[in-house]
Amino acid sequence: MSGGLDSTTVLAIAVKSGYECYSMSFDYGQRHRSELLKAEAIAVDFGVVAHKVFPIDLSAFGGSALTDNDIDVPEQQVEGIPVTYVPARNTVFLSLALAWSEVLGAADIFIGVNAVDYSGYPDCRPEYIAAFEKMANLATRSAVEGCSVTIHTPLIAMTKAQILKKGTDLGVDYARTVSCYQADEEGRACGKCDSCRLRKQGFLDAGLIDVTLYR
Amino acid sequence: MSGGLDSTTVLAIAVKSGYECYSMSFDYGQRHRSELLKAEAIAVDFGVVAHKVFPIDLSAFGGSALTDNDIDVPEQQVEGIPVTYVPARNTVFLSLALAWSEVLGAADIFIGVNAVDYSGYPDCRPEYIAAFEKMANLATRSAVEGCSVTIHTPLIAMTKAQILKKGTDLGVDYARTVSCYQADEEGRACGKCDSCRLRKQGFLDAGLIDVTLYR
Repeated sequence: MSGGLDSTTVLAIAVKSGYECYSMSFDYGQRHRSELLKAEAIAVDFGVVAHKVFPIDLSAFGGSALTDNDIDVPEQQVEGIPVTYVPARNTVFLSLALAWSEVLGAADIFIGVNAVDYSGYPDCRPEYIAAFEKMANLATRSAVEGCSVTIHTPLIAMTKAQILKKGTDLGVDYARTVSCYQADEEGRACGKCDSCRLRKQGFLDAGLIDVTLYR
Repeated sequence: MSGGLDSTTVLAIAVKSGYECYSMSFDYGQRHRSELLKAEAIAVDFGVVAHKVFPIDLSAFGGSALTDNDIDVPEQQVEGIPVTYVPARNTVFLSLALAWSEVLGAADIFIGVNAVDYSGYPDCRPEYIAAFEKMANLATRSAVEGCSVTIHTPLIAMTKAQILKKGTDLGVDYARTVSCYQADEEGRACGKCDSCRLRKQGFLDAGLIDVTLYR
């Protein structure tokens, strides 16, 4: 749970599908830490069994505008993989989700990756997710004992507009979500970064009012 | 680097093969934390460029005798996967190594997993490592840009005796390593746990003097 629109929509989908949900956020040294409070509030809204904030200092490695204050978040669209890419982030996050799922005895992991408006991140592609799932099913005691795990990516082939429509149908209040890479302490968005631009366009394309709080 | 005999032998192999090495240990809430000091001292011995101790609290998930003080470390051999198995540990560790390797621009990751005397851990098997490597090569910016990463497991098919002989040939001082799951603060071994038993038998089978410091 990032507190953004994708992971919130995924939680709504999982809850609606009848899953008993445990949600997880990562305090990974990101700039936009206000997302952690938003994520927790959203998880509570949806009645999760437990919400865990796992501290993991990916800024120790550097190499990303999201964790390194010396690298500026770009405010123009760029070609290729942007500097907001955090090295191996989804692999680290999914590995930790896998660890928790094994202890919980859970067979289903949901993640809000999206390959359409994916901002050029390699670890949001379907072939990556398929390879992670295959690896996960060789990695654990549960796997050896015959309980396989499924990585669910309900948003992977959806546009931002489709995601927003889907979530709206499920009753998600997007005013409670924050997508901005450089949101301020109150969770107000810059309106300029990659993530803000994709979100803004999504509302526009969906024909929905943009309820985002801008600063 | 766990400070044990396997990872130390792997470092010796990598150094001897001419790699410029960066080593990594994990402060993951393990009982045997004296291993962290041993690992760092060994890394310095071998002249690594940098040694990183990465804090990651796997005890937050529980479910293992290595991270949960309420579960006893067994002192008899057991059938199947032992309670010292830590859920998804190698997946989490390799994911973090992958993150660092990407920032460093490194194409080679070495890990001392061993499928012969593997104590029944699923994430020490060759098929698991192959699946991780495949996933890793879809996960990162480096992979997308054509730089593939290789997971090296030089010990995977070796017995403990073969590992000890190999390391001895490479000049490893095994008195500086600690393998015990419940070593004391001075790094002295219990001589009873699974890890101690495998190590002791290894020295015996190799016809080498057991230099382990027992308490």
